[in-house]
Amino acid sequence: MTKVLALAGGVGGAKLVWGFSQVLRKDFSVIVNTGDDFVHYGLNISPDLDTVMYTLAGVSNPVTGWGRNNETWNCLDAIKEIDGETWFALGDRDLATHMIRTKLLNKGLTLTEVTEWLSRKLKIHTPILPMTDQLVTTVVNTEEFGEIPFQEYFVKYHFEPRMINCYYKNIEKAKLSVNARQYLEEAEIIIFCPSNPWLSIMPILAVKDVVSLIKKKTCIAVSPIIGHDALKGPAAKIFNEMGIVPSGYEVARLYKNIINGFVLDKRNVDEKEDIEAMGIISLVTDTIMNDGSNKIRLAKDIIDFVTKSNKGK
Amino acid sequence: MTKVLALAGGVGGAKLVWGFSQVLRKDFSVIVNTGDDFVHYGLNISPDLDTVMYTLAGVSNPVTGWGRNNETWNCLDAIKEIDGETWFALGDRDLATHMIRTKLLNKGLTLTEVTEWLSRKLKIHTPILPMTDQLVTTVVNTEEFGEIPFQEYFVKYHFEPRMINCYYKNIEKAKLSVNARQYLEEAEIIIFCPSNPWLSIMPILAVKDVVSLIKKKTCIAVSPIIGHDALKGPAAKIFNEMGIVPSGYEVARLYKNIINGFVLDKRNVDEKEDIEAMGIISLVTDTIMNDGSNKIRLAKDIIDFVTKSNKGK
Repeated sequence: MTKVLALAGGVGGAKLVWGFSQVLRKDFSVIVNTGDDFVHYGLNISPDLDTVMYTLAGVSNPVTGWGRNNETWNCLDAIKEIDGETWFALGDRDLATHMIRTKLLNKGLTLTEVTEWLSRKLKIHTPILPMTDQLVTTVVNTEEFGEIPFQEYFVKYHFEPRMINCYYKNIEKAKLSVNARQYLEEAEIIIFCPSNPWLSIMPILAVKDVVSLIKKKTCIAVSPIIGHDALKGPAAKIFNEMGIVPSGYEVARLYKNIINGFVLDKRNVDEKEDIEAMGIISLVTDTIMNDGSNKIRLAKDIIDFVTKSNKGK
Repeated sequence: MTKVLALAGGVGGAKLVWGFSQVLRKDFSVIVNTGDDFVHYGLNISPDLDTVMYTLAGVSNPVTGWGRNNETWNCLDAIKEIDGETWFALGDRDLATHMIRTKLLNKGLTLTEVTEWLSRKLKIHTPILPMTDQLVTTVVNTEEFGEIPFQEYFVKYHFEPRMINCYYKNIEKAKLSVNARQYLEEAEIIIFCPSNPWLSIMPILAVKDVVSLIKKKTCIAVSPIIGHDALKGPAAKIFNEMGIVPSGYEVARLYKNIINGFVLDKRNVDEKEDIEAMGIISLVTDTIMNDGSNKIRLAKDIIDFVTKSNKGK
C-alpha cells in the first residue's frame, strides 16, 4: 500500500492525523512541529506532540482538542494560590506527560526516543516523529511586545498582538532524526495538515533536507482556511495583518513551489480555478472535522483524490 | 527576648518548630536539613523544607505530617498509567511548590531566596533557612543495595535496608548562606529538634562553621527516641543496626561534645542520671506532640528549662 506521511501542528492537524491513522493503519506516519516547545516550571513541554499523541491515543480533551480528558486543575490552583504564572494551562494529568518527558530527556534520551516511548505506553500504532531533536523556538515579532516566544504570543496573549513576522530560532542547527528521515524517504505521499502555515507547517519545512526530500513525492496541502476564516487559531488573522484577504487560494500560493495538490473547503469552491492555474490540482470537499466520521471521510477523500490524480498522470 | 534557633529535619522536627513559632513569634528561626533534596522528574524537591513550610503555613497534611492538605493524586495516577516511577508520592497541590521552586532556581535565585519567596507567599512569619544553598546529598550505604541516595533509602525502600553508614555528598562545598549565618550568630539558644540524628541533624552540623558558631550558644537537643523506639522513621532501627540499644541516653551521647542540655521523654526518666553524668543538664517531660497544645507545651517546657538553667549558672 502507498505510504502516507503527514506534517502536522496542533489541534486541527491532529484531527486529520487521527482520520488517516484510522484509514491507513500501518502505512501512515506523522512529523510534528516542535517549534512551540518550551520549558515551563522546569518541565519540557511539547504542545503539538502532546496534542497529536493524546488524539491518537483517544485520551484528548474532547472540548478543547488539546490537553487530557477527565482533567483536573488542582496543581494549577495551588500555583495560583502561591501566585505563580498560570497563563499556560497545566492539567494534573497532562503534567504527568511533561514530567516523564523531562525525566527521560534529562537521562539523555532524544525527543524522538521519548516520543516513541510515550507512544508505546499510550498504545499508539502510528509513528509520531518530532520534526527534530534539537530545540527550535518559534519567535513571533509583534508590534506590541517586540519578539516573544510562540507560547506567549499564542497562549499568554491569545494571539492578539499584531504579528509583523516570525522566525525559527536555532533552525540552522536542527537536523532530521534518523527515524524521521527514514519515514520521509519511504513515504510516497506527503500531506500538509490544515495547520497554521507560518507557525506549524513552515517550521517543519525549514528543517534541513525536508524540502528536498518531499519535493520528490506527491505533496498535498489541506487548507486551514474556510471561507475567509480559520476554525481555530490565528491563520486568518495573520493573513489580514499582511494585508492579504485570507483564502484557500492564498494558502495554496504560500506552498506553490512545493505542493502538487491542494484540498480546499467547499465554501471556497470559487478559488479552485485560480489554484489550478498555478499548476496545482485541487479537491473541493467539506474540510470541517467535527466528529470521527468526518475525519475519516476527509482522509478517505484525500486518498481517493491522490490515487485518481496519480492514475491520471 | 532571647532568640531561639532550631535545627530541624522533617515531620517530627516540624511539629516542635510549629510549637516554638507559636510561643516565640519573631524571636524564633529555623535552619532546615537539605540533605534529602533531590531532582525527580526534572523538579527540585526539598522534602524537609516543604514539611516545615507547610506545617508553619497550616497547610500540611494532618494525617501524614508531610505533603499538602486537601491533596489529590491525579498527576501521579496518570504517571502510573504511563508506567512511570511512582514510589515518591507527588500530590497535585504539592507539585505546585516543586514547580515554582524549580522555576525560580532556574532563574538564578538561591534556595534561600526561593524559600523566603515561598514563605512570604504562604504567609509564614518564621524565617526558614536552608542549611546551605549548595546541593548536598545524603547517601546511605546499605547492605542490600550498596550506596543509595537518601530518598531511595527512605521512601522507595521504606528504610528497610540495613544501614552500614551514611555520608553527605558535596558537604565540603556547602556554605552557610549569609542569612543562615546571621540568624545563627544572633541566636542565644539552639534547639536540636527531635529529628533523626544521622539523617537530619548531623548534615546541618556538617556544614562548615555551624559547629563552631553554635558551640558559643546554649545548645539543647530533644530526643527523638521514646522508650526504645522512634515515633516515626529509622532512628531506633539505625541504633539497633549499630548494635546499640536505642535510648535517649544514646542520643545525648551522640551530641555530647556540642550540647549543654537534653530533653528526654518521661518514659526514659531512668536515663536522666547517666545523661547528667556526661555533664549535660536534662529535662524529663512528655515529648509526644500529637496535637497543637502538646507542641506548644513542649516548646514552653523547653524555654522554661533553659531560662531556669541559665539563671542557675
